Amino acid sequence: MKLIGYFRSSAAFRVRIALNLKGIGVEQAFCHLRKGEQRKPEYAAVNPQKLVPTLILDSGEALTQSVAIMEYLEEIHPEPPLLPKDPVERARVRALALIPAADIHPIQNLRVMAYLREKFDQSEEAAFAWSRHWIETGFEAYEAMVAKDSRTGIFSHGDRPGLADLCLIPQVFNATRFKVDMSRYPTIKRIFDACMKLPAFDAAQPSKQPDAEP
Amino acid sequence: MKLIGYFRSSAAFRVRIALNLKGIGVEQAFCHLRKGEQRKPEYAAVNPQKLVPTLILDSGEALTQSVAIMEYLEEIHPEPPLLPKDPVERARVRALALIPAADIHPIQNLRVMAYLREKFDQSEEAAFAWSRHWIETGFEAYEAMVAKDSRTGIFSHGDRPGLADLCLIPQVFNATRFKVDMSRYPTIKRIFDACMKLPAFDAAQPSKQPDAEP
Repeated sequence: MKLIGYFRSSAAFRVRIALNLKGIGVEQAFCHLRKGEQRKPEYAAVNPQKLVPTLILDSGEALTQSVAIMEYLEEIHPEPPLLPKDPVERARVRALALIPAADIHPIQNLRVMAYLREKFDQSEEAAFAWSRHWIETGFEAYEAMVAKDSRTGIFSHGDRPGLADLCLIPQVFNATRFKVDMSRYPTIKRIFDACMKLPAFDAAQPSKQPDAEP
Repeated sequence: MKLIGYFRSSAAFRVRIALNLKGIGVEQAFCHLRKGEQRKPEYAAVNPQKLVPTLILDSGEALTQSVAIMEYLEEIHPEPPLLPKDPVERARVRALALIPAADIHPIQNLRVMAYLREKFDQSEEAAFAWSRHWIETGFEAYEAMVAKDSRTGIFSHGDRPGLADLCLIPQVFNATRFKVDMSRYPTIKRIFDACMKLPAFDAAQPSKQPDAEP
């Protein structure tokens, strides 16, 4: 399999952690989002959304959308599991995962920020405030959902890292870039610290990728 | 079970279709988003994101995030299935579903449109153009992914409606409100027409809900 990603993409970061946790080795390829490589016709042909990541299977099939890719990896390679067994618990983990994956990151990714600057003529500062607003709104809800739930353990759900953590941790990296005050989210911060002690998370972080830039 | 929704919410609409297709009867309750009822402390206590829908189980547990809720319904009530059996095909359906669910709807829902008007002082017209832009960007990719794939049938994947259609159809309703030219997406239009002939989709549409307003 080949993973096409970009070091700073939160969505690619999620998939890198999943691959590391499950011990699945893949070839890596890179699509430089800031240089607009995702808009090249040869990339759009494999990923019509012109987003990263794309996972190219050995059959040539291209899988898109990080959450769909992680569910696929869970199905073909169930150990160690990213989801619990019980349907209600699985629903809890998926709901947590979708807070960053659907309700934070898509609202403040590169293409949205570009629209704010180019079409709405917003300053860099206003675009940063926008980003912080959606991160804080999402993190407030995530914190509320993990802080007082007895199913929260060392990680977002129990004592094994799972799908929710895979979506949360890249968003915390992103939040730090946007200078969000993480002390407001003590449970998220604690989960982040626990995750980053694990080699699977550490090795997946943006600065440790072959395409990393300062 | 009790579904808390709002007639015009795309995310609640998805879950209503899933319940109808599977023949699961639920009590319905309503949270009037335009009146801000989602921000009341009693609602935020069950859904800290202050979004709809929320599915309250008989145990009292509150499930949030429409995609997580639909995956839950699929797990507890597998027939008729919303996902195919093969992992690669499941990944395709989930990726399609996430185009509206993660990369269109969250960028142009009520709370985001409110931010554009209130914080960026954008006109109604500029906010509409923003909405259309993200719908068109997403639909262009969705159309490309279904138009030339032999696995597309009457519906987005084969001849049975599934998770992708459940996310697509509410987004088409929303696109129509924003005057998106659907003739640019002939495959989506064809799938939409096929879905709307089914009672499960028809009965779930906004105008047929008990809380519908003109």
